[in-house]
Formats: sequence, C-alpha cells, structure tokens
Amino acid sequence: MTDCKKPLQGLKVLDFTRVYSGPYCTMMMGDLGADIIKVERKGVGDDTHYFGPMKNDESGYFTYFNRNKKSLSLDLKAPESIEIIKELAEWADIVVENFSPGVMDRLGIGYEDLKERNPKIIYGSISGFGQTGPYRKKPAYDIVCQAMGGFMALTGEKDGKPYKVGPSVADALAGIHMAFAIMAAVHHREETGEGQFIDVAMMDTAFSVLENFVVTKTLTGEAPTRNGNANLGSAPFNTFRTKDGYVAIACANNGLFTKLAKAIDREDLLDVPEYAENNLRKEHEDTLNPEIEKWTMERTAEEAVEILDAAKVPVGPILGIDDLVKDPQLKARNMLVDIDHPVLGKAAYPGNPLKFSETSDLCFNPAPLLGQHNEYILKEILGLDEDKIQQLKEKEIF
Amino acid sequence: MTDCKKPLQGLKVLDFTRVYSGPYCTMMMGDLGADIIKVERKGVGDDTHYFGPMKNDESGYFTYFNRNKKSLSLDLKAPESIEIIKELAEWADIVVENFSPGVMDRLGIGYEDLKERNPKIIYGSISGFGQTGPYRKKPAYDIVCQAMGGFMALTGEKDGKPYKVGPSVADALAGIHMAFAIMAAVHHREETGEGQFIDVAMMDTAFSVLENFVVTKTLTGEAPTRNGNANLGSAPFNTFRTKDGYVAIACANNGLFTKLAKAIDREDLLDVPEYAENNLRKEHEDTLNPEIEKWTMERTAEEAVEILDAAKVPVGPILGIDDLVKDPQLKARNMLVDIDHPVLGKAAYPGNPLKFSETSDLCFNPAPLLGQHNEYILKEILGLDEDKIQQLKEKEIF
Repeated sequence: MTDCKKPLQGLKVLDFTRVYSGPYCTMMMGDLGADIIKVERKGVGDDTHYFGPMKNDESGYFTYFNRNKKSLSLDLKAPESIEIIKELAEWADIVVENFSPGVMDRLGIGYEDLKERNPKIIYGSISGFGQTGPYRKKPAYDIVCQAMGGFMALTGEKDGKPYKVGPSVADALAGIHMAFAIMAAVHHREETGEGQFIDVAMMDTAFSVLENFVVTKTLTGEAPTRNGNANLGSAPFNTFRTKDGYVAIACANNGLFTKLAKAIDREDLLDVPEYAENNLRKEHEDTLNPEIEKWTMERTAEEAVEILDAAKVPVGPILGIDDLVKDPQLKARNMLVDIDHPVLGKAAYPGNPLKFSETSDLCFNPAPLLGQHNEYILKEILGLDEDKIQQLKEKEIF
Repeated sequence: MTDCKKPLQGLKVLDFTRVYSGPYCTMMMGDLGADIIKVERKGVGDDTHYFGPMKNDESGYFTYFNRNKKSLSLDLKAPESIEIIKELAEWADIVVENFSPGVMDRLGIGYEDLKERNPKIIYGSISGFGQTGPYRKKPAYDIVCQAMGGFMALTGEKDGKPYKVGPSVADALAGIHMAFAIMAAVHHREETGEGQFIDVAMMDTAFSVLENFVVTKTLTGEAPTRNGNANLGSAPFNTFRTKDGYVAIACANNGLFTKLAKAIDREDLLDVPEYAENNLRKEHEDTLNPEIEKWTMERTAEEAVEILDAAKVPVGPILGIDDLVKDPQLKARNMLVDIDHPVLGKAAYPGNPLKFSETSDLCFNPAPLLGQHNEYILKEILGLDEDKIQQLKEKEIF
C-alpha cells in the first residue's frame, strides 16, 4: 500500500477550466493532493471529451488532463446552478477558469460575484491575451499564441517556414505559471488574510521565456531570428545527421570541445586556430559542423550517442513517442503510470514530474465521467437533503 | 510612487542556480517579492555573465534572469565559505540549485548537510534528467533535453528535419515547474512543519507537456509524429502563406469554419459535403487548406489578420522580436519594463507575466554585480563583525 501523503492536501479548488491550459494547472494541483471540483456544462462537458485519442467513446485527451478531479455537471444558465456555484465558492480556497475574458462575469460568477460570498477567495483567470489590453477579446488557440508570443518566428530554418512546437506548449506554459501564481497567492493569504484575482495570458508567458532573444534586441538593436538548430553563441552545438536520423550535440566551452574532438578521433581540430575558442568556433561553424557530421554520418544515432556519452559530451538522440513510452529513465522516474479508467480501461499516462522526498507521486484517481460526482458534491459538500436534490434533478439543473 | 506590495515578501531563498532553468525559477520568486541571495563562484560567477548580448562587458542574459537578487561571491572550496553557506541555510526557507547531480553533496552543502542545520529547509534541485535513474549523470543542455523529451521529434515537417524550439523552453519549463513545486512545499510546511527535498528534471517536465501525443500511443498503439503546423484533429488549422509571410488560422469547429468561409467570401465551401464536419475537414485538409491559402496569398499578413479578426476567427501574425518589442498588447500589460542597471544602463526587459490584483508587478531592482552584496550579507544577515569580515577578506574567501 503506497503512502499517499501529498503536499496540497486540504486545499480546495473550484475548477471551471477547459481544454489544456487551465486543466494542466488544476491537474498539477490535483496530482499534489488538492481537492478539485471540475464544473462542466451539463450533457456536454469540457470540449476535450471529444478530442482524440478516443476509445469506447471516451477521450484520452480528457482523461490525461483531468485525473484526480471530481466532476459536477450543471446547466450554467439556471439560477439554481449559479447559487450552487456560489455556495461552492464559500467551500473553496481557489477558483480557476479559462473562458474568454468576460464570460464568467456574464454568467454571474466572475471574481466580484464570488468574492462577495468568500472575500478570501483566490481567483485565477487564464486567457490567450489577458483580461486587459487591446487584444483581450481576440479568440485564442495555442497556435495563435505561439505565433504571437514569438515561438514560431524563432523556430525553423532562417530562410524557411516558421514552425510551431508540435505539442501546445503555450497552453502548458500559461497553465503551470498560473499554478505557481496561485500558490504564491495562497502564501500571501496565509500571511495577510487577503485573497486576490490573478490574470495570466498565454502570450505573456510565452514572451517571458524567450531567453536572451528580447534583451538582445533591446540592448544591441539587433533582432535575432530563427536559425535552425544552431545555438546563438556556441559551436559545435546543433543537430547532426547520422546513418539513421539526427543526434543533438552541445559543446558550449573548450573543455567539452576537447572531449568531443578526442572522442571522434579528430584531435587535429584542436590545433586549428579558427576553432581555438568558443566564439571563434561559432564564427566558423560552417566549416566546423561538417567535420563533426562526417563522423556522425558514418554511425547510427545509437552508436554516436554511446561513444559521446562515454566521453561525457552532452549528446542526445531525437526520441519519438515510440521511444519515450519505453524509455528507461522515464520508467525509473515513474513518468509513466498506469491508471485504470472505468471506460478506457488501464493505460499508461505521463506521471507527475515533481518528485518530493516526503510526499508521494504515485497515487492517481482516474478522470471522472461527466457529472460523476453530482450527488456526492451536493450532499456531502453542500449538505443538501434528498428532497432538495430531487427537486434540482426534476428541474434538470444537473 | 508605486505600491510595491508583493505576494512572496518575507520568503527567503538561498540560490545556487546558474544559466537558465534555476535562475528563471528564482527570478519568478524574486519578481514576486522573495528575498534571493544568489551564491556565485568568486571571480567567475554564473556562466551567463559571459553570454550575449554583451554591453560594457556585462551580459544582458545574466541581467534578465537575475534581477531582484543579491549576489554573494565565495570561494566554494574554502571551509569558511561552507560554514557561511550553512549559516545562510539557517536564515533561509528555501534552497534552489541546478548543478549536475552530486555536485552539491561533494561541496558539503547537499540536502542532508543543510537539513542538519535547518530541519525545515525546502531544497529544490533542477537537473537535465533528475537525481535518480540511469541517465542521472548525463550532462544536459536544453537542446539535449528538447531532443530526449519529445519536442524535437514533434516539431517540423513529417519527412523533414526535427527542430528545436528557438528559445530554451525545456529549461523554462523545468524552472517554472520547480517554482510551483517549491510553493507547494511551502504550503505543506505551513500546514505540517515539515521541510523536504524536491527533484525536478528537464526531461520529465518536457514529457509532461506533450499534450495528447503520449496517450495517443498508449491508448491506440499509434505514435503521432511531427506534421508541420497542422493540428492533430482539426482543419483548417495551420499556417498559411500571404504576400509577405505567414499567418496562423485556427478553426476547430463548425462555427469558426462558417465565420471563416463568410469572411473570405467563400460560402460555397460550406456546401461541400467533404467539409461539413471538423473530422471530415481534417480528412480533406489537403484540398481545403489550398482554398484558404488562395485567399491569404492575395493579401498581406496584416490585411488577412485584420479581416479575420473582425470576423472573430482565431488568427495571428507570426510576430518576430522586432514586432514584439513594440507590440501594443505587451505594452498595455507591462510586459516590457525599463530597468536601469549601473553598467548596462537603462533598457527594456520582459516584465513579469503574473498579474495580481492586490500586489504589484512594477518594481524591479537591477541584477547584481558579482559579489555586490558580500559585505551586506555577512554583516546584516549573518551579523558578523568588522574584524571577522576583514579576516575572511584577507583569506580571500570572497
């Protein structure tokens, strides 16, 4: 029996999130033991109930991001539902939502509405562009925020097409930034008693992680552009072709370059004045990189990685999904966990990436069915009696 | 005068982080008011002091990620330095580091060493592959973790080269996940009195955000690969060429497709049975996308965005660094803030993306010079007297 002590046990979250950014935020909190009530539209639910992969009419997309949550499905246009939500806001420490700005206010459950019932509530809103500013009403999907947050302009070949990151990383970034912001607000409330509203935008969080690209422009006037897999300042630091795919090799200093040259039996490169320092190697990478690739092209990716690994040169194969699901490191770190879902059956999902010494990362409840916890929540959390629940049922509130 | 109340005021962080992942974590905490003492190697400091952009021999890379921190520079091999660090661990709530696994232990300031002096310490270690498992000793740079965490295999054309995201997003993801984990541990300690060790790996956090790619494999047996800018389940949902660059357009349902068809004067597309539903449009995107591109190709990106914006179709231009630094939304949201640094002068940096209603996002201290706060820390925080400080100085400890 696993000890399931978790760091956020006892924290209560009322969750109106849908799709990816918000659900990733509350999944992180739920994985760490917070009690999450996900409020979904009656009969329809989160859009991702219909996103692939589908199996037995249930979605693997939904079940990944919504594990460890309870589902309450309500007719959000009925006044009785709004009252139920307000009562749950009294129970909750935290509300999270990622509707378009203005939607929660129009439903009557915006920050000001719920704060009236619980002055200490922490209320987090995630959106594409934020609750303020000229773009606030602009509809957003991850690809739009990757385009407008700088990622796409900086990914791909210099003279080629801009690429989005395959997975929706602007969503993920906004979600995990919000999770941090919420915990900062929880700390602030523990210190001062004060709740607050938090506004996190996908565009802002993408912009926040553009590394040194922005300051390069503001300090030197030069705007860096995409440049394949080259590093801005170091060489050899790129992907290199092998007999059967690419490997990434990263030498950012003389020590690593020396190790690389020795490992590939090219100590002659260490005597070339143009390759004597990192900045010189970067300047001459058009001649240096092909020298390295001559060596990698004579080997499979696996052979190249094995030799460079042994030499302590930073190197990695390009792992695809087929590789990742059997990767020994991910397995050793419980990054693939079996979860048994009543409809989907047992399957492996990504585990939680936060490893705490005193609390467990090994207990997961499956994602809920739509409305699975309706009666539990009304009865056990709000304390409604059978008659009242029956009345609400007859009115088709849930 | 700006009110500089911040949510993490009073929280104390002893910071051994270098380069990107760790410094982003503690920058987020410092932006929110935590007191950060960054311990750097005497005379050398964080590697990024030498990363571009450089100006007046100081680095914009370093000054972005290390604002709001104090710098203590120490000879980490001197026993006196280790004693100073242990005394600072008694002052601190939190320690964060991102050396290779094992380095802090060898220095004598690993979790067990510091826990002896402060049993409630929260100690966060960020690394490429984690503190456990077969890859734990493998040297890591962002590109290696993007390669081994799945991003590269999923970015680029199906039959083309795999691409890394331009900015080092595996670093950023590990850093912000750790910031969340630390605040979860702070909450746990406030509830139970218990400190703990936290282990976050770049590979794990990258794997954690691969959206539905992993569950697609584990539930259906099919491993999705990179596929340009196409969406896994919807169309038209891609980038499209214009007269002068690309735009991203994202229609994930019938309502949005109808708006798009009307906006581009192609209501005839709504009568085509192959385009009647989202899954059909995805199946026939090879014929549908060129119809959309015919329209975008007759316009500049700006014209296409203006028309589709007015029609409420999710659309975005590909904004580069030159566009972002003058973007009206980023400006309206204080995402470009001027910071005046004694060596670099005044320049714009990305602001903090977490917008709290009750606390400020508008107060930034410049990044410290190497060792700038040595005497302040020894005197004001550790309470050493002038004689003792003079002795340490003579021994060249700092």
